[in-house]
Amino acid sequence: KVNADRLWDSLMEMAKIGPGVAGGNNRQTVTDEDGEGRALFQSWCEAVGCTMGLDTMGNMFAEYPGTDPDALPVYVGSHLDTQPTGGKYDGVLGVLGGLEILRTMKDLGIKTKHPIVVTNWTNEEGTRFAPAMLASGVFAGVHTEEWAYDREDAEGKKFGDELKRIGWRGDEPVGARMMHAMFELHIEQGPILEAEEKDIGVVTHGQGLSWTQVTIEGKDSHTGSTPMPMRKNAGLGMARVLEKVDEIAWSHAPHAVGAAGHIDVYPNSRNVIPGKVVFTVDFRSPELSVIEDMEARLRVEGQKIADEMGLSISFEKVGGFDPVKFDEGCVTAVRSAAERLGYSHMDIISGAGHDACWINQVAPTAMVMCPCVDGLSHNEAEEISREWAAAGADVLMHAVLETAEI
Amino acid sequence: KVNADRLWDSLMEMAKIGPGVAGGNNRQTVTDEDGEGRALFQSWCEAVGCTMGLDTMGNMFAEYPGTDPDALPVYVGSHLDTQPTGGKYDGVLGVLGGLEILRTMKDLGIKTKHPIVVTNWTNEEGTRFAPAMLASGVFAGVHTEEWAYDREDAEGKKFGDELKRIGWRGDEPVGARMMHAMFELHIEQGPILEAEEKDIGVVTHGQGLSWTQVTIEGKDSHTGSTPMPMRKNAGLGMARVLEKVDEIAWSHAPHAVGAAGHIDVYPNSRNVIPGKVVFTVDFRSPELSVIEDMEARLRVEGQKIADEMGLSISFEKVGGFDPVKFDEGCVTAVRSAAERLGYSHMDIISGAGHDACWINQVAPTAMVMCPCVDGLSHNEAEEISREWAAAGADVLMHAVLETAEI
Ligand SMILES: NC(=O)NCCC(=O)O
Ligand SMILES: NC(=O)NCCC(=O)O
Repeated sequence: KVNADRLWDSLMEMAKIGPGVAGGNNRQTVTDEDGEGRALFQSWCEAVGCTMGLDTMGNMFAEYPGTDPDALPVYVGSHLDTQPTGGKYDGVLGVLGGLEILRTMKDLGIKTKHPIVVTNWTNEEGTRFAPAMLASGVFAGVHTEEWAYDREDAEGKKFGDELKRIGWRGDEPVGARMMHAMFELHIEQGPILEAEEKDIGVVTHGQGLSWTQVTIEGKDSHTGSTPMPMRKNAGLGMARVLEKVDEIAWSHAPHAVGAAGHIDVYPNSRNVIPGKVVFTVDFRSPELSVIEDMEARLRVEGQKIADEMGLSISFEKVGGFDPVKFDEGCVTAVRSAAERLGYSHMDIISGAGHDACWINQVAPTAMVMCPCVDGLSHNEAEEISREWAAAGADVLMHAVLETAEI
Repeated sequence: KVNADRLWDSLMEMAKIGPGVAGGNNRQTVTDEDGEGRALFQSWCEAVGCTMGLDTMGNMFAEYPGTDPDALPVYVGSHLDTQPTGGKYDGVLGVLGGLEILRTMKDLGIKTKHPIVVTNWTNEEGTRFAPAMLASGVFAGVHTEEWAYDREDAEGKKFGDELKRIGWRGDEPVGARMMHAMFELHIEQGPILEAEEKDIGVVTHGQGLSWTQVTIEGKDSHTGSTPMPMRKNAGLGMARVLEKVDEIAWSHAPHAVGAAGHIDVYPNSRNVIPGKVVFTVDFRSPELSVIEDMEARLRVEGQKIADEMGLSISFEKVGGFDPVKFDEGCVTAVRSAAERLGYSHMDIISGAGHDACWINQVAPTAMVMCPCVDGLSHNEAEEISREWAAAGADVLMHAVLETAEI
């Protein structure tokens, strides 16, 4: 078993970097704080004897040698970046859980045939630069590196420039590594495991995602002196579209969810009728056909609303991935590890996207989940127990060691 | 008659300071650009022989002497600050139209019994610091100066500190001046004069305003892994309230208008269900009872929406004024000036708030309006013709000269 206290202490140590305003974290991707978090992780990896690889997307690979120099490594990891008002565990548990495997192996003198590589994937959250899981997506060949470098944040700064600025753009060509398998531990970020009183979620599938950025244009004009019939209120158009988004998602519930988290209003002045709004609709479902239906209805209903109001509307897909089915061999390794260790477990579909979803396209991949309090995540109040963290890391370790051939 | 070309050239000269992105202006109150605009105005005033007074709210008073040292001055003016994406005439025409009166008097050697004071009122727009007409409100005793100094912009900077920083906080106690009368020339910012093909609006009344800042709180959580029934989506709550705002305003149309121009969503991340939204509802009507009804219904309907959705909601009145009836003597001076000069004219109710609305509480006050193209204002594309500007300034001058006793 892993050392539960050591794992917890490291989680708390990492959480000191980029603290939030309410007990959580604001350590967004390729900020100075992200750089600090990376440096701390690197120092910990070097202390267990790893060498650190760094690719051109800033993905970090801490390699712990195996006994067979020809065997492909087993990868394990997640991400250290957070939401602007994020929790201390989302992503971090998967990276430091991987590190805890190495620390335990070192303590106990465990050797595996395959090397083990603990990975920190860059920009998983997708808040500062859409889409989410950007660097694992480039690794898996889903996006080109040039395209990724060109992604812009709200201030117009480019991802590639910012990665270089913080000093974490490496030389290793992204995606060059071959993997024997990849495992990711993550908090559930939903309420199911806690409600079912299970220690472990064996993730068999991941639901798919569609991000559509909607731009509505009307005409900015004076809130006082523009008569009601002359108004082209883009903010009111947005309100009607948001109502439709909710209706569309509910029409497929419980097999779909939908909301808009990102909303920008221009010029955002109390006495100016909004001339323009930009917002991003997030639709998800485990079924591709449902996602496609929701996307199509958003466009049709949105266009109808805009036409009725004399507004113009445009839609741009800014992120997304199809529903995922994880590798059966890897999933079985997770399930039997939970079984052997005596943890209660259940099969589960991931509601969120994860780096594992992209890596699954280029290597056999599976995920381990542990519960989180009230299913709350992407919130500074995100919480898990020390025992849940340790159980997740235990199952992760046993699945990894079995796959890496102890 | 005033010199139409000189007036126009000065308008264009001022518009070079704090240019916008689409042909208009971004010269928001107490910014460096505002400071530059003030300096230019001061240099022009000094060139006609005025002395400049500056009060503790940054209000500028360019005094042109009269023949009777005991006579109270006639004030004329408006504001030089603009919206973030504002036009070149809103406010500026009223200040430079006042200056053009002095230039014309100097050219023609015209003397009046009462001194004439051309005024630039600070922070009329209320975009950066709510409420609008802040400094004329303090002058009229509606707000205290301490309260005004404490108003904060979106970055938490205080009005008083920013006024000092740009070097335009004067020593003269605000509100100490006594006025014989005050006149303000302004573009209509609405479509009526153009539609009715009138050169001049004789402003008899101003509609009242209510700004209610609404805060809705839900719970930020993951857009993917939070099931639909568990969501507390503050953004969706806002959408429903915005729909109600529109419905409430329409229920009183054409005697009311309503919209929300300012909307901030937190944490504003594509994959976080909004946990909090803050937005400001702008309701207006020429009838106080209508404003009161709309305000009350916003609170009732908003509370109902929040309760149904498990959200919390709060309401704060952040600005407003009652409908205004301008001084009959001053209004008559404007109407007979238009008549004398042969300009087509009509009585009109101002849709927007103006510094004159506050000054009317402490001195006999009236306004002159000129048309603007398509009734468009608070938009960089705001446009007027040289002839409209000149007609407005002509009527302003004749009303002022009559009142100041030529
Ligand atoms: N796990 C997680 O929150 N990933 C971010 C991408 C997503 O929104 O699902
Ligand atoms: N004239 C003008 O736009 N004033 C700003 C205050 C208001 O919103 O009415």
